[in-house]
Order: sequence, then structure tokens, then C-alpha cells
Amino acid sequence: MKKIKLVIVGLGVIGRGVIEILLEKKEFLRDMGLDLKVVALCEVDGSIVSDEGIDLKKTLELAGRGELDKHKQWSNSKSIEILGEVKADIVLELTPGNIENGEPGYSHIKGALKNGMHVVTSNKPPIALHYRELHELARGENLELRYEAAVGGAIPILNLHQKCLQINEVESIYGILNGTTNYVLSKMVEDGLSLENALNEAKELGIAEQDPSYDIDGVDTALKVVILANSILDMNVEFGGMKIRGIRDVTPESVELAKKHGYVIKLIGDVRRMEVSPRLIPVDHPLNVSDSLNAVMIDSDVAGELTLVGHGAGARETSSSIYSDVIDIAAGI
Amino acid sequence: MKKIKLVIVGLGVIGRGVIEILLEKKEFLRDMGLDLKVVALCEVDGSIVSDEGIDLKKTLELAGRGELDKHKQWSNSKSIEILGEVKADIVLELTPGNIENGEPGYSHIKGALKNGMHVVTSNKPPIALHYRELHELARGENLELRYEAAVGGAIPILNLHQKCLQINEVESIYGILNGTTNYVLSKMVEDGLSLENALNEAKELGIAEQDPSYDIDGVDTALKVVILANSILDMNVEFGGMKIRGIRDVTPESVELAKKHGYVIKLIGDVRRMEVSPRLIPVDHPLNVSDSLNAVMIDSDVAGELTLVGHGAGARETSSSIYSDVIDIAAGI
Repeated sequence: MKKIKLVIVGLGVIGRGVIEILLEKKEFLRDMGLDLKVVALCEVDGSIVSDEGIDLKKTLELAGRGELDKHKQWSNSKSIEILGEVKADIVLELTPGNIENGEPGYSHIKGALKNGMHVVTSNKPPIALHYRELHELARGENLELRYEAAVGGAIPILNLHQKCLQINEVESIYGILNGTTNYVLSKMVEDGLSLENALNEAKELGIAEQDPSYDIDGVDTALKVVILANSILDMNVEFGGMKIRGIRDVTPESVELAKKHGYVIKLIGDVRRMEVSPRLIPVDHPLNVSDSLNAVMIDSDVAGELTLVGHGAGARETSSSIYSDVIDIAAGI
Repeated sequence: MKKIKLVIVGLGVIGRGVIEILLEKKEFLRDMGLDLKVVALCEVDGSIVSDEGIDLKKTLELAGRGELDKHKQWSNSKSIEILGEVKADIVLELTPGNIENGEPGYSHIKGALKNGMHVVTSNKPPIALHYRELHELARGENLELRYEAAVGGAIPILNLHQKCLQINEVESIYGILNGTTNYVLSKMVEDGLSLENALNEAKELGIAEQDPSYDIDGVDTALKVVILANSILDMNVEFGGMKIRGIRDVTPESVELAKKHGYVIKLIGDVRRMEVSPRLIPVDHPLNVSDSLNAVMIDSDVAGELTLVGHGAGARETSSSIYSDVIDIAAGI
């Protein structure tokens, strides 16, 4: 049995989902020869540390009631302090990232790597904004920095490329990388709704956030495109170099006209062209997927076009990618 | 540089495609640290053996002209004899398989394993009909038996499951696993053709074989379902246990009626239910893919539904899966 010590930073929707899966899959992981133990949990305003392993069930209960600070091991130590002190194998950085500077994830990831711990993150901005620096830091320390969950949620596009398409050189990657906009555009096609009405429906269902600007304006998609460009196409690009147009200008009339000619309008992130824009997609094309699904097409020189369709969000679904990275790293420890 | 000796059995469309990729990717593979050398090529009526490595360019030229027997190292030794004698690391078994008994691939795979060589195959019948026996033989010899290319051509469904969805338990798998039937059904939907006319078109384009019964009657799909059931769902099932209905009864009227209600008819292989049958699929479902594309949906307990769409056939595309298996095995040698 391999004993792996984890630190979880961020107890939001994703963080709690990751803990739930850990409780649910405890035996399954043991059957794989892995004993995962969480030795530190860090939130914005404090932390819980226990080298013996934290009682996760109790922690989830308290977190659910917003009473994490009532945990008997709760301290006001900041996450960045804990990351500099704790001795663990892998840090799961699961906070939401600031699009301007990638914080607080940027500092968390650096802190973890400098303290000799591998990092798995679902946090887009630090990877998109500081790709080279963080990669070089990890390489220099001989540590792994993995972020499958940051691009496409449950869709294992990075791992598919690395582990299943080894003989291929990838020529282009494009697709639907944002579930909110896809839900909105799908509703405009199916129910003839205006963008505003479709967006309100998405908000009511909890698919869209109250301020969905980052989704609607293509920023979220652009962050993922930057990560894919650097990771898979090795393009060495920056977020500032992206051409970004969101879906605010898409009208019911344009949707209807497209439909009449056998097309749908989708917000497409085009990695090779570093572009996010609404595009016409033939109705029978593999990228024409509905609801809040994501779909990524990877065009490579031997396999040809391969499309992955799946859930781009959701705490449970995203955990699939997080544990895929964790298990890979654990195998190498 | 790791030196890996290969044996290629079968110089049909797939075998020649695999050799072409080897010539094309020689430098790419060397950059990965792999020096792949073909030390034996076996055909039905004879073989070429050279421990120094066979001149593949020359061999392709001769094979293209149907003059392989003019190769200066050509001998009448049968493939099964060569497999018992030659010393190599990996055998690529790329012959077409007999659906009744899995021959000649069945004997080739056994011969290769018994002689201490790993096996990679694109050959469905031996794996579908003799799954347990061949697996136990490989395990007993501590050798790898891999067959990504036998299910879904370029679609890396087995490797995706094994390498990217580690935390998941798969609940069901279903999809379009035969390109010929998908082409025919797509043409019936798009152009209102009868099955016969659509099939004739497919034959003219070389998508369907002159006798397309195995495709049209669902046998090819059923073989893939058996492999997926045993490999991914660990179901221990046999080909005889399959319920198989092909697409011969699908009429233009039923296609039209489905279309009017927002559905298409697709030939679906359902792995959990061990069934192949034409089913109604909503037009906006990820499995509604056109032309000769294949699409496999894998529903698992953490990631949820994930669909892979790609080329289910073609020598070049299938080579992507064959080399994925070869590179994995080489990494462990």
C-alpha cells in the first residue's frame, strides 16, 4: 500500500466535491494500492492541519454549515503559510483564480512547488497567465504540475493527447470549451429564445453565474485556449495575444438564418489561430452538441480528427480529471 | 536509444499502412528514444526474415506490385513457423480474422506469446472469440497482449478508459462501432436514399466491401461489443451470447418518420446489454455523427457520459492505435 499525503487548498464547490469522491472511493483506491490521506485543508481565512489525517466527513459537515472555523483543529494560519510548512506529497489547488494576476492560485502553486510538493490544479488563470514560469519551476524542482481539470472539466484532453496519441503530431485543436455559452446558444436554437432570456434560464438553473460576463464574453474559453496552445501545441503564447469575441452579438435572427441553412452557431475556441469567436457549425458536425456539454476536436496527422464530448463543469465530473492526475503522480512516487 | 525488434504479420491494407507510418515517423520515434526495426514480415504464402532489419521501402514497392515473392530474402516459410523461430520483442498481428474460429490470427497470437513476444493486433475475431484464453496465456508468460486498433480504429477507447478515467467505474458503453452502416444510415437520412442505393454508393466509394454482410448484419459491431464487454466491463461474455439485429429492415419511411420527430436511426452496439440493434437517437445527441464516423459513449460513475468520435477505419488512422500500443509496450521493455 502506497501512502500519499495530500493538501487541499480551497473548499468551494470543487474542493468539497473532491473530498466527497475521496470518501466514496476510499476502498476503490486501496484496491489500486493507494492510501490517500489529507493532512491539511486550507481556506481563505484559516486552515486545518493534522499529520494523522483529517476527519473528512466531519469537515464536510462543518463546511456545509459554513462552520469550518468550529473544527477543533482550525487555526487562522493562512494557506500560503501552511504550504510553506506542511510536509505532504501532492497539493490540490482548487481555488477560483483571479483573471488579472492568477491569484491566489499562482502563489499557492509556487509555494507548494518550492516546498517540494507536486501540484494538481483545476484553476485556469494561474496556468494560463504564468504557464512558462510555473512549468520551469516544477521542472527545476523535479516535480509534477498537472491541470487536466482546468481545461474541459471531465474531458481528459491533455491526458488523451499525452497517453493515447503518442505517434501523432497535433495540427489543430478547436471546440466548445464553455458550458454556459453552449447552454445559452443551444436554447436559442431549440426554443427560439433571445440571448437574454436564454441566459436568465441558465441563471435560474444554476448553470450560469449571476455575473456571467467571463463566460459570455469568451474570456473563460480564451483561458483554456491559452493552456491548450502551450501544453499541446507548445506554442509559447500569452493571454494578451488572444483574439476574443463572445456571444453578445448573436441574435435570434442570425440563429434562425443559420438553422435554415443547416448550421448552428457555437462559441469556438480555436487553439492554432488563438481565437475565440462564434462560428457556424454544420448540424451533423461532431462539435454540434447541446445543453452545457463541452466538445473538443483534436486534429492530428495520423489519427485524423478525434472529438471528445463530455461535462465541462460540475464538481463530481471535474474530480475525475483531478484524480486522474493524482493517481498518475502517485504512481511515480 | 531503445532498440525494439518487430515482426509484422499480414501485409494487407493495414499492414502496409503501418509500414508507411514507420517510414514516415522514423525520426519522430528516434526523438522519443525508440529505434523500431522490422526483423520479419509474414504473408499467407511466405515470409521475409532479416535480423539486420528489412528494407521497408523496397518491400512496400514490391508488395504494391504484388511481387513480394521477388524479394531477395523471400522464403516459403509459413507465418506460424516464423513466429515459432524468430527472436523479436513485439509481433504486430494485422491479418483479417475468420469469424468462425478467429484464424489465422488466433494461431499467430498464441505462437507469438509462446515464443516470448508481446502482441499488438488490429484483428477482432481472435480477441472476441478467444478473449480469456489469450489473456491468460499472455499473463502466464508475463507478456502484453494489446488490441486498441481492433475496437473503433483510431478511437482510443481502451486506452482512454485505462489511462484517463482511473477513478471511474464504468456503468455502460454504447455507440456506433461500424463505419459502413453509419455511412449508409447517414445517406438514408440526408439524401432520402433506400438502403440498397446508399449501400451501392458506399461500395462505389470503397467504404463498403463487395459483400458487406458482416457490417450490415451487425456482426462486426457485435465482435467489438464482446471485446469491450470483456476488456472494460470485465463481463466474461462470449460472442454466442450476443443479441444481434442489423440494419436490413431499416426503410426510408422509418428514417423519414424518425426525422420528423427529431430522431435519427443509428446501429448501436450496447455493451452492458450485449445487444446490437438499430436505435432512435435524438438529432442533438453526441452519438448523432454522420458519414463513416464512429462514436463511443462511455458512462462512468464520476466523469459521467463521455463520448469519443473519430475514424473507425482506414489504415493510416488505425495505425495511430497500433503505435500507441507498441509505444506503451516498448516503454516497459
